[in-house]
Amino acid sequence: MDDISPKFISFEGGEGAGKSTQIKLLAKWLTGRGVEVVMTREPGGSTGAEEIRELLVKGETDRWTPMSEALLMTAARAEHVERTIKPALKRGVWVLCDRFFDSTIAYQGGARGLGIDKMRELQDMALHGLTPDLTFILDLPVDVGLARACGREALREDREDRFERMNFAFHENIRDAYLKIAESEPDRCVVIDANRDITTLQNDLRAEVNHRLVGMK
Amino acid sequence: MDDISPKFISFEGGEGAGKSTQIKLLAKWLTGRGVEVVMTREPGGSTGAEEIRELLVKGETDRWTPMSEALLMTAARAEHVERTIKPALKRGVWVLCDRFFDSTIAYQGGARGLGIDKMRELQDMALHGLTPDLTFILDLPVDVGLARACGREALREDREDRFERMNFAFHENIRDAYLKIAESEPDRCVVIDANRDITTLQNDLRAEVNHRLVGMK
Ligand SMILES: Nc1ncnc2c1ncn2[C@@H]1O[C@H](COP(=O)(O)OP(=O)(O)OP(=O)(O)O)[C@@H](O)[C@H]1O
Ligand SMILES: Nc1ncnc2c1ncn2[C@@H]1O[C@H](COP(=O)(O)OP(=O)(O)OP(=O)(O)O)[C@@H](O)[C@H]1O
Ligand SMILES: [Mg+2]
Ligand SMILES: [Mg+2]
Repeated sequence: MDDISPKFISFEGGEGAGKSTQIKLLAKWLTGRGVEVVMTREPGGSTGAEEIRELLVKGETDRWTPMSEALLMTAARAEHVERTIKPALKRGVWVLCDRFFDSTIAYQGGARGLGIDKMRELQDMALHGLTPDLTFILDLPVDVGLARACGREALREDREDRFERMNFAFHENIRDAYLKIAESEPDRCVVIDANRDITTLQNDLRAEVNHRLVGMK
Repeated sequence: MDDISPKFISFEGGEGAGKSTQIKLLAKWLTGRGVEVVMTREPGGSTGAEEIRELLVKGETDRWTPMSEALLMTAARAEHVERTIKPALKRGVWVLCDRFFDSTIAYQGGARGLGIDKMRELQDMALHGLTPDLTFILDLPVDVGLARACGREALREDREDRFERMNFAFHENIRDAYLKIAESEPDRCVVIDANRDITTLQNDLRAEVNHRLVGMK
């Protein structure tokens, strides 16, 4: 695979959909095939962006207005893109990113009511149009995802669960927004039924990467 | 003056132009005339916004990319507007604000090269069009302003001087951008020659308030 230009792949979906699990397996597979890979995550992924992350993932659910939250997320992303993502791609390294701008579009645009189109515009302005080559949207019934995420959070000391604590309708709206995004950008987005076992899911992702990216220059 | 609707006045200009000095004097004068006033400042002016301020005013000059800086400033502003400015105006209280969105337009849009129009668009999106009733732009040769600001910073322990440490051309560009903003919005903006003594300046501001705002409903 090392004769093709480096790719930027984002992983999206609600809490507990399996993004972090799948991204690690995909990275391992790519590495085994001789592809140099960097795994990163949002909000965060660079020094300044991690400082912004601290403001976002903890504290009261109503700590930020929806618009401030969207702007903070996007500020962190602009840092992450300039300091981590673009430099990696420039060095020929593939970038696998756990959440990217679709999270802001789905969470703040969809679930928090700022509008999907308005948030998409904000991303274009902030990132000068940078877009992933491929986006996996891991789709899962909300109750299944929250049950998975809760099981995991309970094990951690320093809880980053501000978004998980929002109500059920909130998470339903996120799911709907992701499906709308996928519908409007079918060339970039692949919806994956995430209510299946880890290996089956991973095999689907690998097939999509082979099919969609490896043929690309 | 208490029979007119509450006004929102912003104070703009480069470092050391005299914004903080003039705002206090104007607040005192308004209070003496029976107007209830709140003085506030940016970045900051509400709990979350002050937390964001901490990330902005200290550290290396290249700590943030221009775009992240603009988004952080605007995130703080969106908080400040919802938590402090709008509630005050709703209670019938005038708001005097030390820097507002023109600072982002002049600093990040003009001096840091993101574009005046692009930054103005971002403000409209983030604040749903909220605009001050009156904006004073305190205009001053850059060397005079920096000399004033340096004299003052030297007295402080906890230096918030990240912007002051940027180079001379940077501050010239800010001044130019402010003048462009004033030219494009003459109904809202008044340019004040700030290279005069404190009392003369203050008398000008009071005359403008009387002239422009007190006749308004
Ligand atoms: N396909 C799957 N079937 C069952 N459980 C899974 C599956 N994928 C992941 N899990 C488990 O669900 C939990 C959440 O998975 P993971 O952390 O990968 O999700 P996530 O999408 O990254 O969540 P978050 O948005 O909260 O970061 C973990 O405990 C993980 O082991
Ligand atoms: N008209 C004036 N003539 C001379 N000195 C002044 C004048 N106005 C203010 N100063 C002095 O200049 C310094 C800077 O003034 P001030 O803090 O009001 O400026 P500022 O615009 O708020 O600056 P900053 O952008 O750094 O907050 C202070 O020491 C102040 O006493
Ligand atoms: Mg995860
Ligand atoms: Mg000041």
